[in-house]
Amino acid sequence: MDQTFAVGDLQTFCADIFQRMGYDEPQAKLAADVLLKADLRGIDSHGLARLSGYVRLWEAGRIRVDARPFVVHETPSTACIDGDRGLGLLVAPFAMRVAIQKARQVGSGWVAVRNSNHFGIAGYHAMLALEEEMIGIALTNASPLVAPALSVERMLGTNPIAVAIPAGDEPPIVIDMATSAAANGKLEILQRKHALAPEGWIQDASGRPTRDPFALQQGGALLPLGSRLETGSHKGYCLSALVDILSGVLPGAGFGPWVPPFVHFLPLPQDAPPGTAGIGHFFGALRIDAFRPAEAFKTHIDSWIRRFRAARPLDAAEPVKVPGDPERMMEAQRRELGIPLHSSVVQALKALSERFGVHFPDPLHK
Amino acid sequence: MDQTFAVGDLQTFCADIFQRMGYDEPQAKLAADVLLKADLRGIDSHGLARLSGYVRLWEAGRIRVDARPFVVHETPSTACIDGDRGLGLLVAPFAMRVAIQKARQVGSGWVAVRNSNHFGIAGYHAMLALEEEMIGIALTNASPLVAPALSVERMLGTNPIAVAIPAGDEPPIVIDMATSAAANGKLEILQRKHALAPEGWIQDASGRPTRDPFALQQGGALLPLGSRLETGSHKGYCLSALVDILSGVLPGAGFGPWVPPFVHFLPLPQDAPPGTAGIGHFFGALRIDAFRPAEAFKTHIDSWIRRFRAARPLDAAEPVKVPGDPERMMEAQRRELGIPLHSSVVQALKALSERFGVHFPDPLHK
Repeated sequence: MDQTFAVGDLQTFCADIFQRMGYDEPQAKLAADVLLKADLRGIDSHGLARLSGYVRLWEAGRIRVDARPFVVHETPSTACIDGDRGLGLLVAPFAMRVAIQKARQVGSGWVAVRNSNHFGIAGYHAMLALEEEMIGIALTNASPLVAPALSVERMLGTNPIAVAIPAGDEPPIVIDMATSAAANGKLEILQRKHALAPEGWIQDASGRPTRDPFALQQGGALLPLGSRLETGSHKGYCLSALVDILSGVLPGAGFGPWVPPFVHFLPLPQDAPPGTAGIGHFFGALRIDAFRPAEAFKTHIDSWIRRFRAARPLDAAEPVKVPGDPERMMEAQRRELGIPLHSSVVQALKALSERFGVHFPDPLHK
Repeated sequence: MDQTFAVGDLQTFCADIFQRMGYDEPQAKLAADVLLKADLRGIDSHGLARLSGYVRLWEAGRIRVDARPFVVHETPSTACIDGDRGLGLLVAPFAMRVAIQKARQVGSGWVAVRNSNHFGIAGYHAMLALEEEMIGIALTNASPLVAPALSVERMLGTNPIAVAIPAGDEPPIVIDMATSAAANGKLEILQRKHALAPEGWIQDASGRPTRDPFALQQGGALLPLGSRLETGSHKGYCLSALVDILSGVLPGAGFGPWVPPFVHFLPLPQDAPPGTAGIGHFFGALRIDAFRPAEAFKTHIDSWIRRFRAARPLDAAEPVKVPGDPERMMEAQRRELGIPLHSSVVQALKALSERFGVHFPDPLHK
């Protein structure tokens, strides 16, 4: 059912599509790079599977190809950026570069962004800080799918938190997590398989726990991390709210139930508070040597990593992991063996290929 | 079983004890204020119940009364502070003030602290930013009680995240949450009652789920937020790890299993990596108007708060809350009606009263 493709081939294909949409070559390559990073790291829901979604947003006039994101207001360590209704895949690296530049100058940089669109995986942008010996942070709000604790209404996105922390001899630590019990992409996989979801992921329209992965389409909601009140769903709600406030309210983007939906066929919210625009993001960069010498930090972070990998495992066959380990291993594997794409994704990409007259690559031999 | 006391009486008693330990009056009052804030907000485990714990750490030479916290290294927006083995209740407000001062000057301030001790509730320190129209952030690591996902070993504290966000006409939003499914204080309440814990809080020494609240004393561990792998315990582990790295590794404090235990009768870890000292904290202050005019933000954050309070509730009798609502309501109630203390806490405080020759107040009439 899956076909496997070489990374480079998919990258070329994806960049070609963006160029046909009107992006210049460096922009198209960057957008393709952000998107492919999701497939490489095993977050299949956020990679090429979304390419047609971006195309449809562009067709619907919700993404401007000629957008020029600009700084609205700034201080030495902060900035508010207007994404000019641009492609989030490009707005986000732009904003993260501003945060990094500020961190170079005054130790840290913090950038809130409004009037943007979906930016791919948060981890990509956070990881831009790593090569600068900085801790990188990337947050974004997203289409409302998650109900707050004690509610039956979808009010929050799966609002991810990504943090990348440089190490010494060890690979960096990379956290990239939805603040819901499960991300929507995982639910989509179950929908394709017609399998039941684990308990604790979803509630139905009346707020009862359910395992039906289609409950979301029938008025249900994803649950915040913690799943039930007695195991801390109010905490997952708090985290998701925090991401929404820093990404949405702080810069003046859409927030809560007024975040514009990613899918083009849902209408934009009509009753959004005046003065809010688009999806919002929040980025941070913290220079390690703004706290103490980077070498001393590296020694200790390597100790941290090694000590946690050596923690007594539940099952001797499955050692304890450090955040980012699974995605890094997946990336190494997929760079070598290629990226498997579900047949429905291949079909959608072939449709784009025909429409834009762009060559679609052959799969690798199995 | 509980006796109720006037807030002011407990504050005076607590400050008197700190003065007998050698603190001057302003220090003693501040330490008492931080501690009492926990009781006021209903986080009973972190308030007066801990006073004898601090006294014992002081007797054991692990808290220096004459500590003078100092800045080790700084940039315009960051600082690393050495707590000089001081009382966390005093080191933390000092560090938070440094973060606030930096935010005034360059938009944001970020302070990592080493060589400190337990700092009370994280929310107190985060809330110091509110009167400055800033978002306040406070993190700390803590004695290892939580097992990472896939592990049976206690490697992390309940490592809290506190964020305080100023509002306009509405009261501020205050998040103050342990990154474990349940904080240890909640377990202690069940132990006193000899009641079972909900599923998802604890595992036993071999990593099996258990509801026995005493399992922690028998080699078990608290579970990260998310409780089980399939409902996201790896995410709670990531959050706890993040708090440990920012609070511990970044400044050079103890981290992971090497965080010094709060209880005086457990020995300090002997194999801690060289160059690490004490408990670590991390503070942040973000000036609202470093992003956009505070008035525009206030209008939107008030909309956020009202819209979330109006979210369709699961149960019409229990409206949806905004983070900080329960604690604020508790504080209003306890300021008026007094603070109830468990008999075991009263007993411990009376022992301190006798020992230090400090008057212990009479309870209020019921």
